[in-house]
Amino acid sequence: MAKLIILLTGMPGSGKSIIAEVARTMGIEVLSMGDVVREEVSKRKLQPTPENILRIAIELRKVHGLDIIARRIAEKLAKIEADVVLIDGVRGLYEVKVFEKYGKCIILAIHSSPKTRYERLKKRNRPGDPKTWDEFVNRDLTELDLGIGNVIALADYVVVNEGSIEELKHSVTALFREVLRKYESTCRSRDKTNRE
Amino acid sequence: MAKLIILLTGMPGSGKSIIAEVARTMGIEVLSMGDVVREEVSKRKLQPTPENILRIAIELRKVHGLDIIARRIAEKLAKIEADVVLIDGVRGLYEVKVFEKYGKCIILAIHSSPKTRYERLKKRNRPGDPKTWDEFVNRDLTELDLGIGNVIALADYVVVNEGSIEELKHSVTALFREVLRKYESTCRSRDKTNRE
Repeated sequence: MAKLIILLTGMPGSGKSIIAEVARTMGIEVLSMGDVVREEVSKRKLQPTPENILRIAIELRKVHGLDIIARRIAEKLAKIEADVVLIDGVRGLYEVKVFEKYGKCIILAIHSSPKTRYERLKKRNRPGDPKTWDEFVNRDLTELDLGIGNVIALADYVVVNEGSIEELKHSVTALFREVLRKYESTCRSRDKTNRE
Repeated sequence: MAKLIILLTGMPGSGKSIIAEVARTMGIEVLSMGDVVREEVSKRKLQPTPENILRIAIELRKVHGLDIIARRIAEKLAKIEADVVLIDGVRGLYEVKVFEKYGKCIILAIHSSPKTRYERLKKRNRPGDPKTWDEFVNRDLTELDLGIGNVIALADYVVVNEGSIEELKHSVTALFREVLRKYESTCRSRDKTNRE
């Protein structure tokens, strides 16, 4: 049976990491596109600030092709035994194409309004997080240049995250249950067909 | 008080026209980007098929600039007395920029999964609607090339439309009520400040 690959996408501050956390709690293996970039940032002995991460993410794509990060994740994906994997931080349809070779892909987008995301990022205040509205808008535009809007537009599921973290966890848990149930019932019906 | 301009965006088959219908019922003036293109199609004595409409939409943008349709809508917008206007069919951030000169803009995106949209369009079966999955995907990609994904990604509100038309109408009515209430309370507090 082909792997189920859940491709998670969303703008900065929309709440992707909470979804990844819910996935882990439910026993879903998580691979993070950001980790691949962070590995590269650390290899180059740079500080892992969001600015450096975004810069290296763009540079890697320029030098090795737009889908380089997806290809590096795909190497890990091929070695993993888990049936269901969530890939955190998909940014372009050219990445979706790479993952489609490794299993049945579904796109999950998380959305919050720019206003909400800005307020969250300001509160989070990690080094490198945007401090002004202009910085925030510029970072958004850099993400959009990578094609993230196209992935969001073609998502199979969109979760709107304007409420509390608890509400988000609750609705995402329900969503994952539904997705896993569908996947498992497909597996069972294929097993049955194979036995017959 | 500046106009409130609700910019409606969404992929083909996501349910934009139902939102426009709800807006009209609630007394919100609706201007359709599609109507501008349809006027042009009719001027050129072509059939108003979705294919011709999309072709002319692209051609107009090529010849007169990406924001030509927004500029033509803006001419109408400037003549309208209504405080609240919904613009149906925004496809790029370059259009949002045009509208921002005419009032306070909020972006409303409607989302349905590709599978749902494909099934709806096949059921709808208007002349020119995609008949195969490949045709559907190609039309989606043309829309994305115009930049619609960027507008969706930066939406202030996202409505997910995977259920019945009644459910959609219900949630959109509630959303418009909230948006109008916020706008009116801003108007009132400004009026008060002006009087003081």
